[in-house]
Amino acid sequence: MIDKNSENDAKFMRLALKEAEKGIGLTSPNPTVGCIIVKKGKIIGRGYHRRAGGPHAEIEAIRSAKGKPLKGATIYITLEPCSTYGKTPPCVEAIIKSEMARVVYGVKDPDFRHQDKAKRLLKKQGIKVTTEILSEDCQRLIRPFAKRVQTGLPWVIVKAGMSLDGRLTRPGKEGQWITNDQSLKDVQRLRAEVDAIIVGAGTLKKDDPSLTIRETKLLKKRNKLPKRVVLTRKSKLSKASKIFTDQFKDNTLIYSNKSLKAVLKDLAKRHQCNSVMIEGGGRLIGDAFKRELVDELCLYYAPIICGENCKPLADAALNASKRLSEISLKAFGDNYRIRGLVAKE
Amino acid sequence: MIDKNSENDAKFMRLALKEAEKGIGLTSPNPTVGCIIVKKGKIIGRGYHRRAGGPHAEIEAIRSAKGKPLKGATIYITLEPCSTYGKTPPCVEAIIKSEMARVVYGVKDPDFRHQDKAKRLLKKQGIKVTTEILSEDCQRLIRPFAKRVQTGLPWVIVKAGMSLDGRLTRPGKEGQWITNDQSLKDVQRLRAEVDAIIVGAGTLKKDDPSLTIRETKLLKKRNKLPKRVVLTRKSKLSKASKIFTDQFKDNTLIYSNKSLKAVLKDLAKRHQCNSVMIEGGGRLIGDAFKRELVDELCLYYAPIICGENCKPLADAALNASKRLSEISLKAFGDNYRIRGLVAKE
Repeated sequence: MIDKNSENDAKFMRLALKEAEKGIGLTSPNPTVGCIIVKKGKIIGRGYHRRAGGPHAEIEAIRSAKGKPLKGATIYITLEPCSTYGKTPPCVEAIIKSEMARVVYGVKDPDFRHQDKAKRLLKKQGIKVTTEILSEDCQRLIRPFAKRVQTGLPWVIVKAGMSLDGRLTRPGKEGQWITNDQSLKDVQRLRAEVDAIIVGAGTLKKDDPSLTIRETKLLKKRNKLPKRVVLTRKSKLSKASKIFTDQFKDNTLIYSNKSLKAVLKDLAKRHQCNSVMIEGGGRLIGDAFKRELVDELCLYYAPIICGENCKPLADAALNASKRLSEISLKAFGDNYRIRGLVAKE
Repeated sequence: MIDKNSENDAKFMRLALKEAEKGIGLTSPNPTVGCIIVKKGKIIGRGYHRRAGGPHAEIEAIRSAKGKPLKGATIYITLEPCSTYGKTPPCVEAIIKSEMARVVYGVKDPDFRHQDKAKRLLKKQGIKVTTEILSEDCQRLIRPFAKRVQTGLPWVIVKAGMSLDGRLTRPGKEGQWITNDQSLKDVQRLRAEVDAIIVGAGTLKKDDPSLTIRETKLLKKRNKLPKRVVLTRKSKLSKASKIFTDQFKDNTLIYSNKSLKAVLKDLAKRHQCNSVMIEGGGRLIGDAFKRELVDELCLYYAPIICGENCKPLADAALNASKRLSEISLKAFGDNYRIRGLVAKE
């Protein structure tokens, strides 16, 4: 008997999504994927993709079943299973071999070369295939991967801590910090979800940031830290900067006199970045908006007004305003975070 | 038997606050006040101050009891009752005459000349007096009145509709509107709470605003509209502007070459304004911040980024950032309103 009803499908896919989320920030250049195996209404396997080169989520789930017979089972995967030999044998082969009866996945492979291939191969073997279950959530999960394979550019998040009047700096000698500890902690969580953090030379000079993940809880399961990337027009950067001298200095990249787009392309291609986060300053952020390179915006507002002698968020003249969609709001003490996607024209 | 316990006191004071709220925006130069009369645990009278020159809340409440004997009753008032002859005889006199046994009020009269006078007079007559019940809420209600009588300046709210990067205008030919209909509707409610709306000559020229209350529900019980005030450096203003030509044109004031502080003083003194709202533009708002004249901030954010060629919220260099307290956040569709008090140095 095959388990088949849409309510159960959504329920198990939600659990597969939960599995996938464990891998966010760890899998590039691969997508984050989660998987649940169900037999007679009972979960007998679960897994997620932990790192590039490691077993895919489907294989993790099959292994977690510890030899229990999978014949007749249903496998829930957030993403269409792979059908080609990469660093590992294709999951489609493993699914067929295990004699599972049904495959449910959330979204198609965004790589046009492989799209729907798994579906055809599985159906040919008499395996039932259901797709588009919680597809929006599953799509959101692979957004960075999908953008890279489809455009050659990483998913670009702009993050900034700012005043209510949109200023990145404070007047006079008030110091560099605008947002509160809770916001800064959230930034750590964001950093743990991306493959690179980009700043301009001005920010390096002004703030001398570490651009690292300091929360030990976030560090625990990571096998790598996000790249730290500095963009500069002149070649002179202070050699004493933290990112050039600390224990992670080999993780720092410098790009001189390159356009932001060229840098992003290189990060996607050579450094396998699915996602990057631009952390300022205003010139770099303004440039990113001007050149339509921003996918997502994450702004932390502190309850202060700084005035017009302080640096603005987007220090560039724009031909048209950029509109956000899928906006979410969260309070961090007396700070507010507004997050949303930048609508494409 | 006198009703006396702190739980009931808070309960009835809350109802008195509810009464008072009905008068917000209608009573200047008087404060908004609400009143409840309770006998043997039952409410037998209620009222609020409806307009300057009209009966005070206490008298409204006494009248609403319609001759029921008030002897032994407790009267709850959000503000210390008046003890001097103004446009009406003092409420203290009416309370004594009615033989009520107990007076509970939220906060003292902020006018130092009258403070605690009612308390003394009532006690002298053997009437029990309890004060400081829900005093924070009661104080909030008379904030504008208290500021005027104590400083000679009105309570100043800065309101702005802006982009996420703190811009009051949009790029190129995108038009003047930034915020959505729900935000604009809320601005109408705000206008109905203040005694004057102030704009700079630039805003008049650029937007030609009506600065009126259009919602009929808000207009219904009003006996006057907020004054419309234009500040100008040069004397030339377009005579065709709506505020000079529409049916409320007599309600418009022009101040030429006066400092903002001088204008505020004049509005408080000559035009009996307890509260005013500055609606822009950035120069005027920047000036208000620079001169420490802002009490409250009400910002509506639309989910767009406009860039640095657009006008900033606070178009003035500030020596120090201004910090907000008592911050509240509200969503209006995809717009957000952040409201808070400007901390005094």
